[in-house]
Parts: sequence; structure tokens; C-alpha cells
Amino acid sequence: MRDECLKANEGYAASFDKGGLPMPPGKKLAMVVCMDARLMPDQFLGLDIGDAHVIRNAGGIVTDDALRSLIISHKLTGANEFFVVNHTDCGMLTFEDETLRQRLTQETGADASGLQFYTFKNLEDNVRAQVQKIKSSPFLSDDIPVSGFIYQVEDGRLRQVV
Amino acid sequence: MRDECLKANEGYAASFDKGGLPMPPGKKLAMVVCMDARLMPDQFLGLDIGDAHVIRNAGGIVTDDALRSLIISHKLTGANEFFVVNHTDCGMLTFEDETLRQRLTQETGADASGLQFYTFKNLEDNVRAQVQKIKSSPFLSDDIPVSGFIYQVEDGRLRQVV
Repeated sequence: MRDECLKANEGYAASFDKGGLPMPPGKKLAMVVCMDARLMPDQFLGLDIGDAHVIRNAGGIVTDDALRSLIISHKLTGANEFFVVNHTDCGMLTFEDETLRQRLTQETGADASGLQFYTFKNLEDNVRAQVQKIKSSPFLSDDIPVSGFIYQVEDGRLRQVV
Repeated sequence: MRDECLKANEGYAASFDKGGLPMPPGKKLAMVVCMDARLMPDQFLGLDIGDAHVIRNAGGIVTDDALRSLIISHKLTGANEFFVVNHTDCGMLTFEDETLRQRLTQETGADASGLQFYTFKNLEDNVRAQVQKIKSSPFLSDDIPVSGFIYQVEDGRLRQVV
């Protein structure tokens, strides 16, 4: 894919006209979204280049690393609204942490017993739990609004949970 | 922004016609990219909905959480090529971990001394270090190609470092 992407980038750069944008997100928005290939958050939220910080990982989990990014976004660039976006048909609903730990240890010989994957059983509960993790952080102001959504990969629709 | 985004999503969903895509990334590609609002990786790499897993955080750092996501991407959905994308004018070049730790402790009263922010001083060195972290993981096969890029926010161009 590398050569194909570099080639595609030549076309993107040829018509690029957004070179003067500042570093802080223009809409003062930061979001934690699942890495799933079917999610194009800028598009399904109607955002443009420069509008929002986009943090993504497997599951759209508010891990310590996602909190690190949110803290930087808020404290250093002024983001003052957060979204959490999970989605239907998420891979994290289809396996269990322990199964993958055992498989990794078996296949690689390295000890995977300390790894946490953050799989979950219930999508709406997971969204609520991630929003709560943001609200519980001592390093993020309580008055930052945090919304939690489920994006439906079947029809492109966003449904608010929190 | 919530109401504005929900409104925009209605338009997206109204013309949505990609409901039948499978969970695994169609191009078998996963990438770790900075959360910066000026980066739209799907667009500057010429990728379409369903093509690639997109992992993003402050700096485009291969943290343990990014490795978690890459392991899931590779082992459970078959991604077999990785990109790391950092960019010019990155906020992580503009402050130091210790400064933000001290500020957080002062402003919140909570102990921030254990937080790591992964700021860096040299962009190209940082890209190389992140690629190396992927290559050093015992849970990811050595034969997965990993490319490291710098995206130039000034002109939309992608430059390969590794």
C-alpha cells in the first residue's frame, strides 16, 4: 500500500489549499473514536480539516493514553468539548481478553499475561463507562461537556447514548 | 458542537450507501497518526471507507495502547502493513513533559508526577523511534512492513522517513 498511498498523496498535495491553519482545533472539539476502518468520523460528523482532535484506538476506549491526549488537547490547545464514539458490529464485542492473551503467548512464546485489551460485552454500557472515565479524571475540568455516541455502520447514523 | 454534528450526521446518513462493508480493513493496513486537527489521513493517503484501521493520539506515538490496537488489528482482522505518521508543526515539539506535569499538579491539586506525555525534540528521530517500537514488539511479526512518514501541514505532502 505504501507506493499506492504516496502516489495518491501527490494528487492531494497538488490541490491542497489549507496550508495556513493554526495548531488548535478550530471547533475546540476532541473525540475518542474506535479505529474501525468503516468509521470516517470527520465525514459522519460533518467536520472539516482543522476542526477537531481525533483520538482513535481499538474500541474507542478512554485508556490512560486517550486521557493523555485529551489532557494535552484541553490544556495546551483549548479543546472544551469531548465526544466518545463507539459503533455497532465492533470487533471488541467478538472476543475476550484472556483468549487473545493465551493465543499471543502460544504463538510468540512471549508472556502476554500482563496485556489488557479492553474487550466489552455491551455497547451502550461501554460508551457510558468511557464517558465516566473522562468525567472522573482529576486533570480534566468537570464543566467540559462530554457526549457519548454509537455510530451505526449499517446506515451511517449516529445515536447519542450519553 | 453536539447539535451541529448530529444535524450534519443526518445529511451523511441520508446519502450513506456503504452499509455492507465487512469488519476487517479492506487494504489490510493499520496506521498510527497524530490527533492533530489538520491531519485527515484518509484523505491525504487516498483511502476510502473500510480500507484501513486508524489509530490516533497526541504525537502519533506508539504507546502501549497503540500497540494494543495494532496487535488486535493484525491478529484478529489480518492487517499486514503498518504506517506511522507524524507531522510538521506538531504541538509535541512545543512543550516538555515536566512543565505540563507541574502545571497540572498546580492547577488541579492532584498528583501528576506519574504522567508521561511523550513530547519530543526532533521529528524525524521521533518517527524512527516509533517505527522501532513496533518492530521491537514480541507480539507483532517481524515480517510486517512498517513505514514512517512526516506529513507536512504546510503543503499536504507526505515525506517518507523510514
